[in-house]
Amino acid sequence: MLTAAETAALLKTFDNVLILTHVRPDGDTVGCAAALCAGLRALGKTAYLLPNPGLTDTTAPYLLPYAAPEDFTPERVVSTDIATVGLFPENAMPYAGRVDLAIDHHPSFEHFGKANAVRPEAAACGELIYDILAALGPITPEMALSLYTAVSTDTGCFAYSNTTPHTHRVAAALMETGIDYRSVNKLFFQTKTRKRMQLEGAMLADMEFYDRDRVAVLSVPMSLMEQVHATESDAEDLSALGGQIQGVDCAVTMRELRSGVWKLSVRTGPRINASSVCRALGGGGHAAAAGCTVEADYAEAKRRILAAIAQTAPDFVE
Amino acid sequence: MLTAAETAALLKTFDNVLILTHVRPDGDTVGCAAALCAGLRALGKTAYLLPNPGLTDTTAPYLLPYAAPEDFTPERVVSTDIATVGLFPENAMPYAGRVDLAIDHHPSFEHFGKANAVRPEAAACGELIYDILAALGPITPEMALSLYTAVSTDTGCFAYSNTTPHTHRVAAALMETGIDYRSVNKLFFQTKTRKRMQLEGAMLADMEFYDRDRVAVLSVPMSLMEQVHATESDAEDLSALGGQIQGVDCAVTMRELRSGVWKLSVRTGPRINASSVCRALGGGGHAAAAGCTVEADYAEAKRRILAAIAQTAPDFVE
Repeated sequence: MLTAAETAALLKTFDNVLILTHVRPDGDTVGCAAALCAGLRALGKTAYLLPNPGLTDTTAPYLLPYAAPEDFTPERVVSTDIATVGLFPENAMPYAGRVDLAIDHHPSFEHFGKANAVRPEAAACGELIYDILAALGPITPEMALSLYTAVSTDTGCFAYSNTTPHTHRVAAALMETGIDYRSVNKLFFQTKTRKRMQLEGAMLADMEFYDRDRVAVLSVPMSLMEQVHATESDAEDLSALGGQIQGVDCAVTMRELRSGVWKLSVRTGPRINASSVCRALGGGGHAAAAGCTVEADYAEAKRRILAAIAQTAPDFVE
Repeated sequence: MLTAAETAALLKTFDNVLILTHVRPDGDTVGCAAALCAGLRALGKTAYLLPNPGLTDTTAPYLLPYAAPEDFTPERVVSTDIATVGLFPENAMPYAGRVDLAIDHHPSFEHFGKANAVRPEAAACGELIYDILAALGPITPEMALSLYTAVSTDTGCFAYSNTTPHTHRVAAALMETGIDYRSVNKLFFQTKTRKRMQLEGAMLADMEFYDRDRVAVLSVPMSLMEQVHATESDAEDLSALGGQIQGVDCAVTMRELRSGVWKLSVRTGPRINASSVCRALGGGGHAAAAGCTVEADYAEAKRRILAAIAQTAPDFVE
């Protein structure tokens, strides 16, 4: 396991570097890869990012300026924010057995590199890359903007419980380069697609309350997805919405996967265990967030989850 | 103008202190006042907060544990996060002429105290109070939780453009006391009342798009407010919603104040000036956020604002 200083020393010996990002790339993996690429180029090295087929309008501007040309033949391969080879995008699979350095922060990291730098207590891989780049030379605004994106997005803009004092101190140092951090936060946290807004609007307009208003049920039937021409990306993490309603201890989001099949996502406060509720219907998960799949029509699927809630927390429902 | 060290030295000479918060109290004013009260008590002094008639379910738990008994007769009066005597709550007016120390961060601060500590570049008054308390002694978790609330709420959880490296470093120091900062962020940023959710749902379900989808119009008729029994607090800052729609350059929120009177709030991106649009209808504001009031029925009010947009930015509308 390498420290930031040792990782920096190793990178100094590399050239013609290809940097990999994970499947369904997020702000952390593209921000880390872009910043590292800029850092290596600042040392006079040749470095590129492997294009990632999962880029979105939001993540593409980070990766594309550094995208490797098709004829680039790397001497060295580095991965950022990838816990396991199973999370390589398909076009990265040829490099699976030859990663020279893997830099990650996931507790589930599998040490698949010839050398590995991991810090499981870091909220974002961007925190490690910051420490590594700071050991290599000055952090430019270009690197800082990518790293700020990495750190901010992986912590929900410093709101989640993974945020640490180190996260904030890294953010402070990055801001001192004069970056437009406000635009990053607006883009990632205060912008939603029109279709996403329409989905949320319909869910909220039709939400139902049970058990003295402590249980909320929101639904996303296939007809709604079709009506607004929504994509999977528009529908991502819709179950978070119900979890934000004040006074609701248990929010159920019912997503119709296909006719007669509903995916139920349950988000709970401390008074009821989401995993216990979902286990009663053959699913599972965590205490505050769990899920299950029910084959039934809407009314019957809702009846079953409400019964599972009543059975799991009889005192709670009364 | 006092430095943090000078303010700390002055506070050491005080006893029997009453601390004031501003009208419509937010997380910054109650967090600052509560932390300062705890800090003075840690020095062995008697200190209380003046009750504030504008407390909400969210802000009350910060102030109430320190609320002054009715028979408390202060020797010294300190205000936190209050820019001007005009922002005193009604029950603080008797102290308007006798504030011994005013601590604030607003550029519009009016130096109404016998002594004044102000730092207009601070995102939150909590940053000043942190520096003052750190000069007085150890920051306890009790003080830290209140100050974290002050700093986080005044920066939109570190997202707004007022956030500085100092803001992040203060947050890092506060987190090191071991506070449950996650609950603060969840309460202030990821919790909405059921009525608020219903308002947003109806607005999004009925929103309309114009001018090649670059103008969005959302409306809050009186009938909607009545239908969900919404309060003013539920309806606060509803105009932010339209400003979050991807690809929309101009979001108009139409709020029916009374029959035939609409308050129009305009939020714009860089391609159109909200203030110019609203000036055309007798209103005004800032480049990205402005407002005006139109006496007309819904259809006519909408026609007028769309015409004002077309007139202000003819190239934009095409």
